[in-house]
Amino acid sequence: MPYFDAASSAPLHPVARQALLASLDEGWADPARLYREGRRARLLLDAAREAAADAVGCRADELVFTPSGTRAVHSGIAGALAGRRRAGRHLIVSSVEHSSVLHAAEAHEADGGTVTRMPVARTGAVDPAAYAAALREDTALACLQSANHEVGTEQPVAEVAGACRAAGVPLLVDAAQSLAWGPVAGGWSLLTAGAHKWGGPSGVGLLAVRKGTRFAPQRPVDERESGRAAGFENIPAIVAAAASLRAVRAEAAQEAARLRELTERIRARVPALVPDVEVVGDPVRRLPGIVTFSCLYVDGETLLHELDRAGFSVSSGSSCTSDTLTPSHVLRAMGVLSEGNVRVSLPFGAVEADVERFLEVLPGAVAGVREKLGAPTPTPAPAPATGPVPASGPAPASGPLPATASGAEGEGAPDALVLDALGKLCPLPVIELAKVIGEVPVGGTVRVLADDEAARLDIPAWCEMRGQRYVGEEPAAKGTAFVVRRTR
Amino acid sequence: MPYFDAASSAPLHPVARQALLASLDEGWADPARLYREGRRARLLLDAAREAAADAVGCRADELVFTPSGTRAVHSGIAGALAGRRRAGRHLIVSSVEHSSVLHAAEAHEADGGTVTRMPVARTGAVDPAAYAAALREDTALACLQSANHEVGTEQPVAEVAGACRAAGVPLLVDAAQSLAWGPVAGGWSLLTAGAHKWGGPSGVGLLAVRKGTRFAPQRPVDERESGRAAGFENIPAIVAAAASLRAVRAEAAQEAARLRELTERIRARVPALVPDVEVVGDPVRRLPGIVTFSCLYVDGETLLHELDRAGFSVSSGSSCTSDTLTPSHVLRAMGVLSEGNVRVSLPFGAVEADVERFLEVLPGAVAGVREKLGAPTPTPAPAPATGPVPASGPAPASGPLPATASGAEGEGAPDALVLDALGKLCPLPVIELAKVIGEVPVGGTVRVLADDEAARLDIPAWCEMRGQRYVGEEPAAKGTAFVVRRTR
Repeated sequence: MPYFDAASSAPLHPVARQALLASLDEGWADPARLYREGRRARLLLDAAREAAADAVGCRADELVFTPSGTRAVHSGIAGALAGRRRAGRHLIVSSVEHSSVLHAAEAHEADGGTVTRMPVARTGAVDPAAYAAALREDTALACLQSANHEVGTEQPVAEVAGACRAAGVPLLVDAAQSLAWGPVAGGWSLLTAGAHKWGGPSGVGLLAVRKGTRFAPQRPVDERESGRAAGFENIPAIVAAAASLRAVRAEAAQEAARLRELTERIRARVPALVPDVEVVGDPVRRLPGIVTFSCLYVDGETLLHELDRAGFSVSSGSSCTSDTLTPSHVLRAMGVLSEGNVRVSLPFGAVEADVERFLEVLPGAVAGVREKLGAPTPTPAPAPATGPVPASGPAPASGPLPATASGAEGEGAPDALVLDALGKLCPLPVIELAKVIGEVPVGGTVRVLADDEAARLDIPAWCEMRGQRYVGEEPAAKGTAFVVRRTR
Repeated sequence: MPYFDAASSAPLHPVARQALLASLDEGWADPARLYREGRRARLLLDAAREAAADAVGCRADELVFTPSGTRAVHSGIAGALAGRRRAGRHLIVSSVEHSSVLHAAEAHEADGGTVTRMPVARTGAVDPAAYAAALREDTALACLQSANHEVGTEQPVAEVAGACRAAGVPLLVDAAQSLAWGPVAGGWSLLTAGAHKWGGPSGVGLLAVRKGTRFAPQRPVDERESGRAAGFENIPAIVAAAASLRAVRAEAAQEAARLRELTERIRARVPALVPDVEVVGDPVRRLPGIVTFSCLYVDGETLLHELDRAGFSVSSGSSCTSDTLTPSHVLRAMGVLSEGNVRVSLPFGAVEADVERFLEVLPGAVAGVREKLGAPTPTPAPAPATGPVPASGPAPASGPLPATASGAEGEGAPDALVLDALGKLCPLPVIELAKVIGEVPVGGTVRVLADDEAARLDIPAWCEMRGQRYVGEEPAAKGTAFVVRRTR
């Protein structure tokens, strides 16, 4: 039963398990106490801190353990912003950060601060030159993930760190997805991660703050972990986290090569096996174990369910029919198709035969979902938009209709066919669009009325994949009208 | 090697260990995911929530798991205060709460709120009538621990809860020390605890918020734990926490009777075995496993070290020679002697023979420390102050000298002997006072100049124990002058 969702949480590494068991009997006491049980706990904690700092590439006294990666992010951002309050209240984050970073940015805005959210290319990477240009006199902190959690794209951290250093702005790197593979290169000032992503136990995050970085811990604060992480230390889990980080690092180079080859197979073969698929994320500058693709005319949650029934545990950045009706902020920022999105993230030790079996199962699963949804019969994509991997370039323009165009192509255009998809959830608006496009004369337009948030992303993406022209959107009496011109 | 500091952290209960091991393989995945590993994790989490809620005495949907008791306190207080913002910004806490509650109160003050800190009797308990009288129109939240962590005194929670209910004010009960023994009686609105106090693993706290309690979770917030505890859930530890809470509850009645008898022995025999000792805390309304006493002319940290060498791990509310030079806020609020303070907190399963052995070792350990410090030879205490257990009554007046008294007994009094103890740490000022008191004529006074914060507590306590009169304090050119009148 292959588990292919390591980017959510990795199964406990055997070394983590061993270390956890070994320290349960020694690590339960209060490390602040002076009696022998306390001293033993303190020794374990100190040794774990040394090991983790070594793996992170910092000094032990620069690293504290937190209850989770999320808490590390919140404490790190809040402490760095407060420490730099005199410099200003401007925060920069990329638009594809983990939700914890974006939540912290929202909290900063709610508190009166200003936030710049750096756009990304269609690969998911920020442009380092644009990032550098966003640094201001009053920038208190810049944040950039080491690699993206949904599509695996590596960010240009070293370049951005260099620009930050030159500007005297500290850079916080969320290294949650990459720390298993190696230390983060470049002159970062703060770094965060969570152990369950590398096969450590739940309940442990880490926050490194380099000496010389202005940092004012925010409440809650107590005397533990240098005042940077309140609450009783979870020492057995911390020991297990540090031991397993060391263990995965020892295997990292070999395993990276192996998993990269396996994900490369998926990247290469899925577009051949499944029609109307877009593989997203940078094909080269990426994590070894993650590959993400989106399938036209597919509801991601139903597809996940089908794959689960076939024995494969994968994730989706787009769960249109679940509680959250909005597509992944990462896919949206990249401007790529969000419907039928599947993220495969292979854990350490993933078995080649399982990957092959996944490639066998996937086409049938996608076809089954499409059939249930009444999707149009797959057609070969037109030449200009065929590439399964749009390697770079900005997202297609999808803003409001330009004023000059609205007369010809907008609301009042007499040739506009209207498709009412109000109240229909992704991927139905796109499926209906695909069905009616044949009725539109070449050169004519169709206005798709929709109120599902995902339509804003998926209709332009469909146009790009199908070689049609996306004109733009405009407000409608109900929902939004997305205007598409048939070009072929 | 007896460990007698269960109130700091209890050794892992065997059931916690079993449950942790059993759930390591099932509980590592993200419970928000829909694939089988996620569903299994969700099942474990849901079952643990049911079990914990049952033990707490609330509904499962009223309880969330947090990374620690400390985090539960901070989230609970912040959320309740925000939820009641329209009622007002007044917070009531007792003066003997756990530091996390007091830190939260400080944070509230720093944020512009007002705080009333309820005094306690010499037993450590708040007066429920006084607490009720402190409730105001604008009181947003009241906090009261179920029992004190340093002296074991149970608080009148049910009475205070009744008063709060009548006033329409939610009551948050920090049940960290008592939850192992049973649910908290009375109509509380919020309740917090941490698992490592009952033999569960580190890394798990719980926060219960009764339906109908206004509650606005404060940042950081994500979709986990009903938005009340951000960060990836630590499911194996949560399972272990819930299972061990159930297990200790099953043994609680029997173990409570057994430990109560053992601590009663210590309460009764220590004053007979060791001269110049004050046993503190309520002798009846108390937790089964905690007993605390203070020894005149003893440095608590040195005594702890001696007891550690003899194989006993105990704690002290007063570590005069450690980093924190101030005595415990609990002992200070109670107005009892802080020097030479020892807290014995027996874990579940504590062995009778170990307690007997402790009583054998203690007198020699105390005598050894006193000898090293050059303490006066013990003398039998005078009759009026002999009682080892001052069961109740307010703390002795120890404020600034009353204006009317200062002429006769204060700075300018011609008969005042001056003892310069500036720069000397607890217990040296008291030891020197004990040595010079014989030189003061009966009816005369001695002015002790001291700058150690503990002197403010320990000189009045010494007077009470030795049957001398504590007149008051007044500012001196350096430090403070504590004025004592010899009465015998």
